[in-house]
Amino acid sequence: MMMSQFFFRPDAVILANGVFPTHAIPLGVLRSAPHVVCCDGSIAHWPDADVVVGDGDSIPSQYRSRLARITEQEDNDLTKATRYCLDHYQPSISNHCRLRLAYLGATGMREDHTLGNIALMMRYYRQMNIEPLMLTDYGWFVAAEGRQTFDSFAGQQISIFSFNTTRLTSEGLRWSAYSYEELWQGTLNESLGARFTLDADGCYLVYRTYDAK
Amino acid sequence: MMMSQFFFRPDAVILANGVFPTHAIPLGVLRSAPHVVCCDGSIAHWPDADVVVGDGDSIPSQYRSRLARITEQEDNDLTKATRYCLDHYQPSISNHCRLRLAYLGATGMREDHTLGNIALMMRYYRQMNIEPLMLTDYGWFVAAEGRQTFDSFAGQQISIFSFNTTRLTSEGLRWSAYSYEELWQGTLNESLGARFTLDADGCYLVYRTYDAK
Repeated sequence: MMMSQFFFRPDAVILANGVFPTHAIPLGVLRSAPHVVCCDGSIAHWPDADVVVGDGDSIPSQYRSRLARITEQEDNDLTKATRYCLDHYQPSISNHCRLRLAYLGATGMREDHTLGNIALMMRYYRQMNIEPLMLTDYGWFVAAEGRQTFDSFAGQQISIFSFNTTRLTSEGLRWSAYSYEELWQGTLNESLGARFTLDADGCYLVYRTYDAK
Repeated sequence: MMMSQFFFRPDAVILANGVFPTHAIPLGVLRSAPHVVCCDGSIAHWPDADVVVGDGDSIPSQYRSRLARITEQEDNDLTKATRYCLDHYQPSISNHCRLRLAYLGATGMREDHTLGNIALMMRYYRQMNIEPLMLTDYGWFVAAEGRQTFDSFAGQQISIFSFNTTRLTSEGLRWSAYSYEELWQGTLNESLGARFTLDADGCYLVYRTYDAK
C-alpha cells in the first residue's frame, strides 16, 4: 500500500452515517481534518465534530447543542452538510477556487444510499464547485474533467465512471479507457506505473484502490 | 419486516465474492435455491454449490473439481456466472421466458464493484433476457420496464434508478417519481401502502428495503 502517494488535505471532512471507516487512510484524513461536519447520527462516531447537520431525529441529546437543523426535504443529509461547508468554510489554498471536501462513511449499509452518494460526488463537482474525495475502507473516488494525470502505482486497481463524456482516452492503464456508456464498463482496469492520464470532453469519477491486486 | 410479501423463487442463485449475507431473507433464498453458482472464491462460503465460475486463481484446491473455468477477460465473474446459468438452466415457469436469477454477495467491499454490479442488473435485464433480483442485508433491487405494480408496505423505503427513460410516473409513493436524470434523484422515496405502481417509457431499477424506516 502506497501511503506516500496519499496527500489530499481537505478543507473539511463530512462524516455520513454509513459504515464508519476502519482503514488507516480514511481515519488519518478524519483525524487531521481542520473541520468535521457530521450527518445526523454519525456524531456518535465522532463526538469532537464541529457541527452536526440534519433534521435532528437521530441525534443523541448530548449533541443537540451543536445541531445545525436544516429542515428542507429536497436534499439528503450529505448535500445539507455540503451546503453547510460551502457557507462556513473557505478554500485553504488561495489559488484553488474549489472547496476540498472529504466524504467518509458515505457507503455501506443501504446500497441505494451508496449508489446515490457516489453519484452526488459528480453533482458536487459539476454544480457546487466542490473538489470531492470519497474515502472508504478499500479505495477512494475523485471527480475530474478534461485531461488529468493521477498518482498511482503498478498494480493499483482502477475504475472509471463516465457521466457526460463522448470522448475518453487513457495513458498508463492496462486496458485503454473509452467513453463508457454503462457504469460497469469502466471497472476492472489497472495502473501500469506511477501515474496514469485520462483525457475526456466531460466529467468522470475515478476510483483507485489502496492496495494492488 | 414483511416476510410474507417476499415470494421470489429464482431458477438459480449466483453468489458473488462481496460481503456474504447475514440477513434471513437472502439466506432463505440461498438455502431454497434449486441451483447455486459461485463466483470464484465465494465457494468457500457455500461448499454445496453446483459449480464455481471464474479463472480459478482464488479457488481453494478442494473445490477445483467443480470449476467451470472461463478464461475470457472481457466480462467479470458475475457476468460469466450469468452466462453459465443461461447455458445450463431453463426458466422454471413455462409461461415466463426470462431466467430468474438471484444475485447475493454482489455488494460490499470494493465500491467500484458494487456500483458496476448494480448497473449489470440492468444489462442482464435488457440484453440477456434475465429477470435479475439482487438481495443484500438491507433490501433488494429488481429491474423493470413499462408499467409495473410492486408489492410493498406502508413506510417501506423505495429508491428508483432510471436508465433510459424520458417519462416516468408513480402511484402510491410519498413523492411523485419522474424521469430522473441523475442516480441520486430517485432515492429517499417511501411507499404509502400495500403496493405502488411505476409507469415509464424505458427501463429502471427499483430498490426496496426489508424494513420500514
